[in-house]
Amino acid sequence: MSEFGLIEHIARRFATIDRRGWEAIGDDCTVLPIVGDEVMVMTTDMLVEGVHFLRDKMSATDIGYKSLAVNLSDVAAMGVRPEAALLSLALPADAEEEWAKEFIEGFHSLAEAEGVALVGGDTTSSADGVVINVVAIGRGRAACVKRRSAAKVGDKIYVAGTLGGSAIGLKDLIAGRETACALEHRRPVAQIEEGVWLGECGEVHAMMDLSDGLASDLCHILKASHCAAEVYVEQIPARECDVESAVCGGEDYKLLFTVSSDSAAEFEQDFEARFGFRPYAVGRIVEGEDESIRWIENGTEINPQWRGFSHF
Amino acid sequence: MSEFGLIEHIARRFATIDRRGWEAIGDDCTVLPIVGDEVMVMTTDMLVEGVHFLRDKMSATDIGYKSLAVNLSDVAAMGVRPEAALLSLALPADAEEEWAKEFIEGFHSLAEAEGVALVGGDTTSSADGVVINVVAIGRGRAACVKRRSAAKVGDKIYVAGTLGGSAIGLKDLIAGRETACALEHRRPVAQIEEGVWLGECGEVHAMMDLSDGLASDLCHILKASHCAAEVYVEQIPARECDVESAVCGGEDYKLLFTVSSDSAAEFEQDFEARFGFRPYAVGRIVEGEDESIRWIENGTEINPQWRGFSHF
Repeated sequence: MSEFGLIEHIARRFATIDRRGWEAIGDDCTVLPIVGDEVMVMTTDMLVEGVHFLRDKMSATDIGYKSLAVNLSDVAAMGVRPEAALLSLALPADAEEEWAKEFIEGFHSLAEAEGVALVGGDTTSSADGVVINVVAIGRGRAACVKRRSAAKVGDKIYVAGTLGGSAIGLKDLIAGRETACALEHRRPVAQIEEGVWLGECGEVHAMMDLSDGLASDLCHILKASHCAAEVYVEQIPARECDVESAVCGGEDYKLLFTVSSDSAAEFEQDFEARFGFRPYAVGRIVEGEDESIRWIENGTEINPQWRGFSHF
Repeated sequence: MSEFGLIEHIARRFATIDRRGWEAIGDDCTVLPIVGDEVMVMTTDMLVEGVHFLRDKMSATDIGYKSLAVNLSDVAAMGVRPEAALLSLALPADAEEEWAKEFIEGFHSLAEAEGVALVGGDTTSSADGVVINVVAIGRGRAACVKRRSAAKVGDKIYVAGTLGGSAIGLKDLIAGRETACALEHRRPVAQIEEGVWLGECGEVHAMMDLSDGLASDLCHILKASHCAAEVYVEQIPARECDVESAVCGGEDYKLLFTVSSDSAAEFEQDFEARFGFRPYAVGRIVEGEDESIRWIENGTEINPQWRGFSHF
């Protein structure tokens, strides 16, 4: 069973239990209406040694920083500012006090910079390897929440930064090279200000963050929105890598979103005025019952079999 | 560093970040005022194979059931009814589809019985061993929330059931004996109805659930409430075990709470009328700057060096 097969099985199994206002599984975060226009959003990610990070290739401080960053990115991808987190930490015998304290320093440095409170957690020992689970929580206005299901035919598709840097950075780290890409892998930037600003933009329809790569993540938007996409291969902003690494590498944590085509030109200017760089237009939403990506290279459809990263 | 030393280090390190209304670390759950008298409470627990459970001694269904039960118990111990959960699951190569489906069945059976929705989660692979992280969430009235810090000198101390059964049950399981205690270990009962009812009782002051054993957990109430306790050894409701196993064994998940002594007689009757059994009075809260337990056996103080279970 694939990762997404298991998630679908779980979602089906629990569909009959009354959700008391909580939204169904399917976005970067679950959403709970609180009162009036206020909602709470919440996400959780588990990071496992040997799967998500290598303890001999990344410092405890970096792992602490990154484990919070990837969760804050999920909250920002809903258009909401994160405000609180919970941290569970399982530590093996060879990673106790000093490792834990350094981990906490990294986690704390990002939490402090972004004003995210640590409101709960759990610590335990582990038989093998460090395991980290983080929950990130945000509160915002219902009208600003962006979902995967909101893409509309005709929308332009954007990514808010270059792709593939993290995958290249992982190779650099393993080879012992301290490059700019390695830094991107160790300390991914959660695009919180961008996410909150995009949440306020009515012309922005669907949004999520790129954790598994464009080839995989865009399909979540297409399935949720019941449409297809054309992606223009020559427009993909690959960072020091080939296009395949850029769309399959994963862990870039750049925002992926769709914008009403009528407003796109003005939107790009406003975004650039606010953030000092242009988002990259990589394609457009089209009709299509197959809910899949058509890769177009210089006007011709290609069939490259690109797939994103899967944890199974 | 001990488990609680690490938690204190983390709490101190994050103390300077604005909590935006979220309560400080220190109870079974964190508490967030929502609107008016409504609060949200939230807890998280990580369960690690080889530390919290043995995959060859417990079925996946039991592990699924128990991983939710221990979190629901934490919510109930605040006096609040749980309504939602998040589940993160890391699966090694030897525990994929079938194991995961059985785990989900166990988790689902309790969730359905208690009306707890699964609102989010994460699935991933693991290099070694199954790791589970559960978040449980409840909503209730602020006036009903019970905290560890609310014990008052003179209060009677109660436990809402027998102690030591889970520890005996673990030994039975390891020896291959399917006993009633083994069932208590595999399928602990979260005292949700009791917790919600106790939340409504103004004469109930401090409350928590017994996860590490009375000898350890009562000390959390004493430290938070700045008082000491006398525990009457002959009144401890040990289940098929000696007193040491009953107070040090852990994983009983019975509610531990303190009640104003003026109201205690009437309270015991009301509790019995509602639940069909009497809570066990095991001691009383006394003044004491050492914030520790005095064990009294038939009128004489003993010094048994009993400690609860620690995960480090």
